Amino acid sequence: MISTLDDLMHGCGEWLRGEGPENDIVISTRIRLARNLADFPFTSIATEADRRQILDRVKEVVNNSPFREQVFYVDVDALSDLDRHFLVERQLISRELAEGQGPRGVFIDRAERFSIMINEEDHLRIQAVQSGFQLQATWELIKQWDDYLDQHLVFAFDEEWGFLTACPTNVGTGMRVSVMLHLPASVITRQMDQTLRSLEKLELVVRGLYGEGSQAMGDFYQVSNQVTLGRSEEELINKMAQVVPAVVAAERKAREFLLAEGHENLHDRVSRAYGILKTAQTISAEETLHLLSSVRMGIHLGLIQEIPIQLLNELFLFTQPAHLQKLAGSELDSADRNIERARFLRRKLGELSKKV
Amino acid sequence: MISTLDDLMHGCGEWLRGEGPENDIVISTRIRLARNLADFPFTSIATEADRRQILDRVKEVVNNSPFREQVFYVDVDALSDLDRHFLVERQLISRELAEGQGPRGVFIDRAERFSIMINEEDHLRIQAVQSGFQLQATWELIKQWDDYLDQHLVFAFDEEWGFLTACPTNVGTGMRVSVMLHLPASVITRQMDQTLRSLEKLELVVRGLYGEGSQAMGDFYQVSNQVTLGRSEEELINKMAQVVPAVVAAERKAREFLLAEGHENLHDRVSRAYGILKTAQTISAEETLHLLSSVRMGIHLGLIQEIPIQLLNELFLFTQPAHLQKLAGSELDSADRNIERARFLRRKLGELSKKV
Repeated sequence: MISTLDDLMHGCGEWLRGEGPENDIVISTRIRLARNLADFPFTSIATEADRRQILDRVKEVVNNSPFREQVFYVDVDALSDLDRHFLVERQLISRELAEGQGPRGVFIDRAERFSIMINEEDHLRIQAVQSGFQLQATWELIKQWDDYLDQHLVFAFDEEWGFLTACPTNVGTGMRVSVMLHLPASVITRQMDQTLRSLEKLELVVRGLYGEGSQAMGDFYQVSNQVTLGRSEEELINKMAQVVPAVVAAERKAREFLLAEGHENLHDRVSRAYGILKTAQTISAEETLHLLSSVRMGIHLGLIQEIPIQLLNELFLFTQPAHLQKLAGSELDSADRNIERARFLRRKLGELSKKV
Repeated sequence: MISTLDDLMHGCGEWLRGEGPENDIVISTRIRLARNLADFPFTSIATEADRRQILDRVKEVVNNSPFREQVFYVDVDALSDLDRHFLVERQLISRELAEGQGPRGVFIDRAERFSIMINEEDHLRIQAVQSGFQLQATWELIKQWDDYLDQHLVFAFDEEWGFLTACPTNVGTGMRVSVMLHLPASVITRQMDQTLRSLEKLELVVRGLYGEGSQAMGDFYQVSNQVTLGRSEEELINKMAQVVPAVVAAERKAREFLLAEGHENLHDRVSRAYGILKTAQTISAEETLHLLSSVRMGIHLGLIQEIPIQLLNELFLFTQPAHLQKLAGSELDSADRNIERARFLRRKLGELSKKV
């Protein structure tokens, strides 16, 4: 059973499981709620003693919950930098929590389907994730936790404004719904600019793999709601339920177009990406992501048969800097990571050729 | 026994045999002699009847020679464009002969070590080639033919000027000595400009794979003497014997430097080149040459073990446009050639993986 960070190294977690509806295009569905305890100042102005008390209060409630066996606690303040980045890469904690100061921690679901960060920008950030396009299941998952915590903690809440949060953009439901999409064909066919403009008009924001402040890399786009004030949870979820299928349909159409109009070029791109991943002796995280993106599309279009999607997801996850260093068992500088990353890819993809 | 163009398709000929001294850097040594019959005007101003007579005269002499069993005759005028280009790619005839008009032909050595072109820019162009750096052997090979032809034909010769040729740059010995070098490390370490300047000062010219008018591609450079007037054959050969080892030494030093200072990057370049050749679904002749160049260096540096140099040379030769079309058995446009070339490379390199 997963109960330490090292146990996490044996699997890929929920968000990269590669299953669920529309999984050829939708990587994962994520919902997070921002909550604050009414009796304490926001994290940024709270004293260390306040934060310690917040931490203890939340830990006590979770540890007495009927769900306590589902989760394990990690003291983020006590972690090495490497382990903090490991959790960020795994999308179990935010960069903000990793790079913060003082008492802070996270409860992690043993199946990695949700986590509860304590003393992030808000006192609590509860997030749930499901692979594929699963708004309802993700909402139900997070709701049971939110309801339980709401019964045992006093959240800062205003009848007129809703939940109060450290950053005004989160006031209201405190909810952000994010859907991670893989849109390589939309990028190749130069439709992304138009897609991005349409999403903006709908008050949605688009970010990269690691959320706020991250660039889109490897054709991965995270679409989230921008506004939380004056909208109910259902409205936010419904909007996503309407918009995402349109983006998915456009990507699917673009893939069909590429297959029909430029089959050889598409196959060439996919096949060369696979060839480079199998043979590189040194490779950056960014190039790896870019090539894995092509291979992922190739698998879903039937251009590459031999790679199971689970292996591909494992490669996505474990070629990230912190994962790679934990695999290697030591800290590595950037040049050594590039060599280690290439070695890992050759080994994993080489084993595959032997099996076939 | 090789006696038709189609027979040539089964092998690689002499110049790409990959043997001989310094064969890690020197591909081949080539000597050609320009000769004209004293009784006829130069080809460019000769009538068709003249050219027919020249052709008949030379054919008669060769067919009565003690070497007649070594060669077979090809009527270049009667060939398809594809077959003419095939012979150019094979370096058995010049572009000038291929693209010329009227009665013209070539005697080809069954081992592809020499050929005698008739009605090229000069009435006769005799060339001999040996793989690796072999000035003396190449000279002896061509000399026996030149001596024999000189005894049975009257060559245009002037006591003061030497052999008379259509182009003044060939007057004198009518000899061009060319050494084909593979200099990838000199290119990577940016020493080629300096090398080229040094060679120029020594009155040597540097061309690409296909001689006059061709660009250096895939790091292949053909170094030849520029001046023939006022120099003896021995002087021209001696100059090459002095200069080439210096260029070879510089390339070898550059390779050692790259191995020592940037081993991972060099290995990466070589390994990725191999990976792309194994997986591309469409690939141009130029990119193929470029990648094969990296792989060739990798083989000689021990970075790639599994490819025999003979196979590499076969890939060099048969991925050229005319060879590829002859293999496919039909004329192909550029896009289809790129697909066919990739298919050929995957098949040849795929067979290799199965053997290992």
